[in-house]
Amino acid sequence: MIQSQEKPDRVLVRVRDLTIQKADEVVWVRARVHTSRAKGKQCFLVLRQQQFNVQALVAVGDHASKQMVKFAANINKESIVDVEGVVRKVNQKIGSCTQQDVELHVQKIYVISLAEPRLPLQLDDAVRPEAEGEEEGRATVNQDTRLDNRVIDLRTSTSQAVFRLQSGICHLFRETLINKGFVEIQTPKIISAASEGGANVFTVSYFKNNAYLAQSPQLYKQMCICADFEKVFCIGPVFRAEDSNTHRHLTEFVGLDIEMAFNYHYHEVMEEIADTMVQIFKGLQERFQTEIQTVNKQFPCEPFKFLEPTLRLEYCEALAMLREAGVEMGDEDDLSTPNEKLLGHLVKEKYDTDFYILDKYPLAVRPFYTMPDPRNPKQSNSYDMFMRGEEILSGAQRIHDPQLLTERALHHGIDLEKIKAYIDSFCFGAPPHAGGGIGLERVTMLFLGLHNVRQTSMFPRDPKRLTP
Amino acid sequence: MIQSQEKPDRVLVRVRDLTIQKADEVVWVRARVHTSRAKGKQCFLVLRQQQFNVQALVAVGDHASKQMVKFAANINKESIVDVEGVVRKVNQKIGSCTQQDVELHVQKIYVISLAEPRLPLQLDDAVRPEAEGEEEGRATVNQDTRLDNRVIDLRTSTSQAVFRLQSGICHLFRETLINKGFVEIQTPKIISAASEGGANVFTVSYFKNNAYLAQSPQLYKQMCICADFEKVFCIGPVFRAEDSNTHRHLTEFVGLDIEMAFNYHYHEVMEEIADTMVQIFKGLQERFQTEIQTVNKQFPCEPFKFLEPTLRLEYCEALAMLREAGVEMGDEDDLSTPNEKLLGHLVKEKYDTDFYILDKYPLAVRPFYTMPDPRNPKQSNSYDMFMRGEEILSGAQRIHDPQLLTERALHHGIDLEKIKAYIDSFCFGAPPHAGGGIGLERVTMLFLGLHNVRQTSMFPRDPKRLTP
Repeated sequence: MIQSQEKPDRVLVRVRDLTIQKADEVVWVRARVHTSRAKGKQCFLVLRQQQFNVQALVAVGDHASKQMVKFAANINKESIVDVEGVVRKVNQKIGSCTQQDVELHVQKIYVISLAEPRLPLQLDDAVRPEAEGEEEGRATVNQDTRLDNRVIDLRTSTSQAVFRLQSGICHLFRETLINKGFVEIQTPKIISAASEGGANVFTVSYFKNNAYLAQSPQLYKQMCICADFEKVFCIGPVFRAEDSNTHRHLTEFVGLDIEMAFNYHYHEVMEEIADTMVQIFKGLQERFQTEIQTVNKQFPCEPFKFLEPTLRLEYCEALAMLREAGVEMGDEDDLSTPNEKLLGHLVKEKYDTDFYILDKYPLAVRPFYTMPDPRNPKQSNSYDMFMRGEEILSGAQRIHDPQLLTERALHHGIDLEKIKAYIDSFCFGAPPHAGGGIGLERVTMLFLGLHNVRQTSMFPRDPKRLTP
Repeated sequence: MIQSQEKPDRVLVRVRDLTIQKADEVVWVRARVHTSRAKGKQCFLVLRQQQFNVQALVAVGDHASKQMVKFAANINKESIVDVEGVVRKVNQKIGSCTQQDVELHVQKIYVISLAEPRLPLQLDDAVRPEAEGEEEGRATVNQDTRLDNRVIDLRTSTSQAVFRLQSGICHLFRETLINKGFVEIQTPKIISAASEGGANVFTVSYFKNNAYLAQSPQLYKQMCICADFEKVFCIGPVFRAEDSNTHRHLTEFVGLDIEMAFNYHYHEVMEEIADTMVQIFKGLQERFQTEIQTVNKQFPCEPFKFLEPTLRLEYCEALAMLREAGVEMGDEDDLSTPNEKLLGHLVKEKYDTDFYILDKYPLAVRPFYTMPDPRNPKQSNSYDMFMRGEEILSGAQRIHDPQLLTERALHHGIDLEKIKAYIDSFCFGAPPHAGGGIGLERVTMLFLGLHNVRQTSMFPRDPKRLTP
């Protein structure tokens, strides 16, 4: 056990750096035993480090005894070992490893951390495409087994790629916004009152009282706008006590939130948000091509397509498209999930894009603080954004006038006492502003063409899962 | 009210851009009325935009009627106005404004958002240094009034600077770590079991069961290390149900968390963390000098000093320094807050640094998962980091061996059933690793030499405050 006893000089070489340039060098490597296979006086190991792996050979001879070969052959899979060996060029490429041109001739091998002999899932099964599993009758791993054993499931090349790409989404989101002059804010998650009427909110015992978990940072973003920060963003957990057991709902997810004051028209904000999404898509396609391809190997999917500038459709146009396709919907009905999906297909066919904005939602289906459209009282200055036919962002111009806000709250039957602090925020001069909130896990899922948000949440929370 | 009726071509000029280069140009500006003062046929306004302000003059003449002057004089402070005016060079610098060389001769003025006539606090009072307030008998604003009216308090130049700098800390933290090859992770805040024994944890009603709010992302960071991410960080809320009413405790704060696998010695990690802090300090001093000076005007303080590489003291050395200064402490006693402070002074005197690492804490005062020191069983491989004599980070090598972890948990009287998932994470091969968690609000407070963590939390939460 490494207990920080000493600080040796030894340099550990990365598996990805084991190439023919290192041929005939003696190196030390720390890696996991991915597989081991004894064959007479030899033992072949595959050593894995993150998404890279290399073949290692322990053979009876000058450097290895019979005992050592036996020892190597018996190391449990997933154990971490330190290996000293000579890098040797191979004559035939090793197709099953990422380091195809060399193998490691082992001279010494130490177990750094021993894995238990029985693994709850096999990594090779966990990266097998479902189609292949079905056709060839080979094992795949179901989602609950994956999630129950997340520490192992996250080691697969697919998981490594998914979450590296997700880290990239956060980075690109912030990079783009900081370049646009936005300020990052931190908003509280424990709040004293359930802001939107109290439905779907988790209750917290707060010393001798009750408090709630914030369903969105929206009030706080808006307060920052009223406090002259002008353009703000935040990334943080969002809590929804909805008993929804679907492929795209979580009770806790990561919100990428934006709020921004504008001069004359909320489209100034909507276009900034859409451009931010485009910068994310571009950045991912430029910087994370390897990760995208790795995920595609297990979950094949079409590359993500988008237009510049982003396609904007008005709600009434979408209704017309749906009606033409045979859907019956009233002018003020909200989109159902199947209709969203269908609309996504129609838009893809007509405009060849997987990303678009749906603008001017019916006022009736939006929250009380949504600014009505000045030209059509049944419409509102609000929008959703979609990726591959699923909603990833909901946003709007917010009412910044306390009087109108009060009227709209009363219209919605909301107790004014409960939202007094919210309304008061706008009483000391408030700039017109708009914003929106993006679900990180959905963006990751839909960009990669995955089919369940639990694949893109490291430790997902839903009504039935609170562990690990 | 701007309801996004139209998209005019009008360009709004920023207040900070109103300089002599723009002399004699006609411009439109949107800003707040900071003050207004009528004087015969003239009205002087100070127009404020974030931390910049400019004098504007409405005078009876070709462009303004008597009524308009009266109208301008009566606009409530903090209202937002759109003003058209000519930029005019002034003969005498205007000392009370940031734009000292020009004033705006107003031709048109519209109220975009009217503030209520009575403000709960005056911005000029809110930025007055306490010393000046006391000497000259002028008003300052107490903390509860500030926090109760945070939307207004956050508009002051001091608040704007504090939170812009805080946004910078997060940015520098991530920038440094991403350059070092770290991956950003998102960890759940709702957890099924209170990880560290159940003290100081908030309970959440989770559908028909109880759940808890995470006191730290540590378990999840460690799981990511066991899942081969090697170097991870996260920024997110951390919850502590402690009934502590001090200048430096919050019930919800923002944690900057790091976890990293190492090769041979936890100092590899400790040094990476210390270097990250140094990169943050350097970045702040390079990029946020204006903000630092703005805060210093209201809260004077010595510039923050640090060494490169960071000073590392062992706990026993610190004990010796304290004992020499007359403090009586046992070898295995923890540091009290006053002793931490005193130690900070002693270290500053001796080494001229406001930042240092205290290494090798007594095992007895650290959590069960802390790796014991292999050379001295009473010590541990753990460290704290201090800024201006206050703790900002606590960290350690964590035990990665399930057997030793079990032994240590039993020694601490912890129910093994409750931490089974935690221990299981290390059963399938775990690399040696270490990490730590940093309190964002404390770093901001101590870097700027402020005296209360509520000054550096936008919407602080403590046992007595849950609003706004």
